[in-house]
Amino acid sequence: MAGEFDLIDRYFCRQKLQRSDVVLAQGDDCAIVSVDADKQIVISTDTVVAGTHFLSDAPAAWVAHKALASNLSDLAAMGAEPAWVSMAITLPSFDSQWLEEFCDSFFALADDHNLKLIGGDTTKGPLSISLTIQGLVPKGKALTRSGARTGDIICVSGSLGDRHAGLEVLLDKSKQGLPFAKQLEQRHFISTSRVALAQKLVGLASSCIDISDGLVSDIQHIMKRSNCGANIDVSKLPVSPELEAFAQHPDSEYSDAWQYALCSGEEYELCFTVAPDLLESVQALSNEIKAIGVMNESDDLVLHQAGSTLDAKLFGFDHFRE
Amino acid sequence: MAGEFDLIDRYFCRQKLQRSDVVLAQGDDCAIVSVDADKQIVISTDTVVAGTHFLSDAPAAWVAHKALASNLSDLAAMGAEPAWVSMAITLPSFDSQWLEEFCDSFFALADDHNLKLIGGDTTKGPLSISLTIQGLVPKGKALTRSGARTGDIICVSGSLGDRHAGLEVLLDKSKQGLPFAKQLEQRHFISTSRVALAQKLVGLASSCIDISDGLVSDIQHIMKRSNCGANIDVSKLPVSPELEAFAQHPDSEYSDAWQYALCSGEEYELCFTVAPDLLESVQALSNEIKAIGVMNESDDLVLHQAGSTLDAKLFGFDHFRE
Repeated sequence: MAGEFDLIDRYFCRQKLQRSDVVLAQGDDCAIVSVDADKQIVISTDTVVAGTHFLSDAPAAWVAHKALASNLSDLAAMGAEPAWVSMAITLPSFDSQWLEEFCDSFFALADDHNLKLIGGDTTKGPLSISLTIQGLVPKGKALTRSGARTGDIICVSGSLGDRHAGLEVLLDKSKQGLPFAKQLEQRHFISTSRVALAQKLVGLASSCIDISDGLVSDIQHIMKRSNCGANIDVSKLPVSPELEAFAQHPDSEYSDAWQYALCSGEEYELCFTVAPDLLESVQALSNEIKAIGVMNESDDLVLHQAGSTLDAKLFGFDHFRE
Repeated sequence: MAGEFDLIDRYFCRQKLQRSDVVLAQGDDCAIVSVDADKQIVISTDTVVAGTHFLSDAPAAWVAHKALASNLSDLAAMGAEPAWVSMAITLPSFDSQWLEEFCDSFFALADDHNLKLIGGDTTKGPLSISLTIQGLVPKGKALTRSGARTGDIICVSGSLGDRHAGLEVLLDKSKQGLPFAKQLEQRHFISTSRVALAQKLVGLASSCIDISDGLVSDIQHIMKRSNCGANIDVSKLPVSPELEAFAQHPDSEYSDAWQYALCSGEEYELCFTVAPDLLESVQALSNEIKAIGVMNESDDLVLHQAGSTLDAKLFGFDHFRE
């Protein structure tokens, strides 16, 4: 790849952050990294494609943030410390302003997490960004989806649902007058991965996943891999006061904030399980951790409210079980 | 990503090859791998995009081979043993026959190299495949581009030039009648990365690169990173008898086989340097290793033949120095 695309490479070589475990970054056939003997590596790949995951004219800074935040969230779900990232970027043309904005945003978020760009590939074609991110965990201690046991308490971090409400406003301008519509719309574009919190859960949580598809979908990944059922009290789902007000408006898609909380994707909050005797230790880590249910011996996900079982299908969650 | 793209994931989970260092492959937020204390990891990313690197209707098996072979060649250039690969694949639609052929080809080549697919992402959009491949090298022993010293002998593996001649036939059907045109055209589609040979060069070669852009271009990467010049005797360039015959035909692009050897890209042969006292040990490894020149103190690449210096610019290599 010659000419302009050589210049592009230079945009991606300007990260000042250094890591002592990076022996060689860009500039050779491969990067070289070292790993301490007491660590394992966790690896995740995520791609965002223009037209599929974002509009072609979306701001470059947001595209960069979106691409990296989802990868960081995958590391968080394993309780890993971010280390290295490789970027495959395909660009339709050389647009220096777009690249400046993209790189500024990308490196700002990477630097925040001590994450070093170690290499990649720059190609010409339809716009897409594929990142392979790597993190470190103490040997044998990674949080997975498969460790939940009957009786474990289900917890989530943060509040849920705002991003779905924000998307609703974004897609239907007539809803811009609903309570807190602007604030919720803005929250659709912001996501903070729970990288630091997740590392504190190592040794405490029995299973963990990041909420990327929506809680109802993601808890079922834990159920499936852990061979458990789950019982969730929707009245315990953490929601923002803004979402409460939005949902109460007759023109909103759902009438209850917890319905948003169940289906909202790309939240990048954590859903994890913890043995009952460790719940107190976990909740001492952050007042943003809420217990919302319990794992059981069944094969099903049951939602209840004030003691009554809800029929989830009524709320449009058709594809209830994969 | 739901529905058909879930099915696609199953195509990519069928590799039977197991590696004891893969703690967890597909099915969680991240894969988990272990690394022995005496090893370092080398990492490379390569993307192939339909319309840029191959035609949209190219055979799926060849696309898979091309994507993986170029990555394996990057590992070879470092002297690494292949270990794990992550695949980001973007597909315009669900085509089960295409996927079958793609996966059969991909896993056959991966299995040959004890390379385990540990994860990735399947997305919808314009066809492209981005692979991040990882390999293992003894700590501190990776072959890089920067270790060549004045006086080191320049060597290449295999024979060079066939792929460029094959491409010439492929792009101009009127050349199909030239000597060995069919054989050369077929060789354009076949590439064997020098993974096994390269591992034997660890501790012997002072620098190494794979020939992906063409020898004239790739030797300059070694020169630049090693702060050396290079002197190459074109009469020593290894070429096939078929290419010799092809080049002698008046209708071929170049009149000498060595001209093909200088510019032919995607050869995936190795170009490396070795201290003079180690040349014999290196050549004992394989009779496919040929000495073609010597590194010197200058800043330039000089080509000569039978004692006469050649003006490389005469042969169309305008972008002689990056």
